[in-house]
Amino acid sequence: MARILPPQIIALVDEFAKLPSIGPKTAERLTMYLVRHGDPQRLATALADLRDGLQFCAQCHSYATAELCDLCMDNSRDDEVIVVVAQPLDIVAIEKVGSYRGRYHVLHGVLSPIDGVGPTQLKLDSLVNRVQAADVSEVILATNATVEGETTALYVARQLTPLGVKVTRLAHGLPVGADVEYADQVTLSRALSGRTEIAV
Amino acid sequence: MARILPPQIIALVDEFAKLPSIGPKTAERLTMYLVRHGDPQRLATALADLRDGLQFCAQCHSYATAELCDLCMDNSRDDEVIVVVAQPLDIVAIEKVGSYRGRYHVLHGVLSPIDGVGPTQLKLDSLVNRVQAADVSEVILATNATVEGETTALYVARQLTPLGVKVTRLAHGLPVGADVEYADQVTLSRALSGRTEIAV
Repeated sequence: MARILPPQIIALVDEFAKLPSIGPKTAERLTMYLVRHGDPQRLATALADLRDGLQFCAQCHSYATAELCDLCMDNSRDDEVIVVVAQPLDIVAIEKVGSYRGRYHVLHGVLSPIDGVGPTQLKLDSLVNRVQAADVSEVILATNATVEGETTALYVARQLTPLGVKVTRLAHGLPVGADVEYADQVTLSRALSGRTEIAV
Repeated sequence: MARILPPQIIALVDEFAKLPSIGPKTAERLTMYLVRHGDPQRLATALADLRDGLQFCAQCHSYATAELCDLCMDNSRDDEVIVVVAQPLDIVAIEKVGSYRGRYHVLHGVLSPIDGVGPTQLKLDSLVNRVQAADVSEVILATNATVEGETTALYVARQLTPLGVKVTRLAHGLPVGADVEYADQVTLSRALSGRTEIAV
């Protein structure tokens, strides 16, 4: 059968379709956009350079281009508080808030027996070492509000509490802008039990 | 401010986010997938090669790697019928059906005054030339069933009918699997007026 489209177009559609959340139709549309309007060369360069010199930070295990990442090297940050997240992108989300000035620790996953992820697959030992070695007053567990995230938070808390450090968890409750009427029961139950006093 | 993530990660997120239908969150997730699991080098190569030797077919204006595309060079196809489409991807969709064995013509757009697309922006002259030059018995207009697609089909039909060629349009009606109850009025009206006799 004759090829309907040139091989370089088909090759790019195939590569795009391998990415998560990109179906064959989206892959075709992205390819056609890049053929006509976009800058495939810039994207190609960004991809080719992606892993150049990329490594994990020796302290917090986020991505870095040196032994330590920029956040760990930033002397202006508070060494006494560590926010524990599941993956590096969670750091980006928390940094965007702009109010946190402490350190981070990336677990690189959450406990998930069904996926074969146990405590040894997570960067837990190094977290325990960090808490023991430095003068850490509080560890804030910022894993997702999912079953796996909660389980992981509980497990990490059990490892850290005996070390005498204060272990806290992100608050659960109604997201800002949410309707009480449409909130699910679990969220509403957590919002009730975690209610705060209004200071007037 | 310290960089939250290494520059090569941020660069790729930025490039992905420039693509249509890719928001900042999806751009981040695609980048993280490629850092950990995917093959950024293969995608980079496919992108870098995308426009290599790519040109428009001199006859049908689809994409080609030579003067004529593979479909136009295929001698086994019927020269008497031409399907007119708005863009090259429409050819892929029709070829997947597998029942059409004629030729194609890509308009590269549809008439859209609001976007400043008039008849001169479309590959219309060359279609008229093809119909005049060759022994074409039927032109099937396969533009989208949208206002712009319908307008374009009507305009093209008016250009071609004086040449004595039979001009047809893709049928409108209920998509296979659709409920009459939920069909919109315009579709149902077209399905009624285009009703076909059941041969028993």
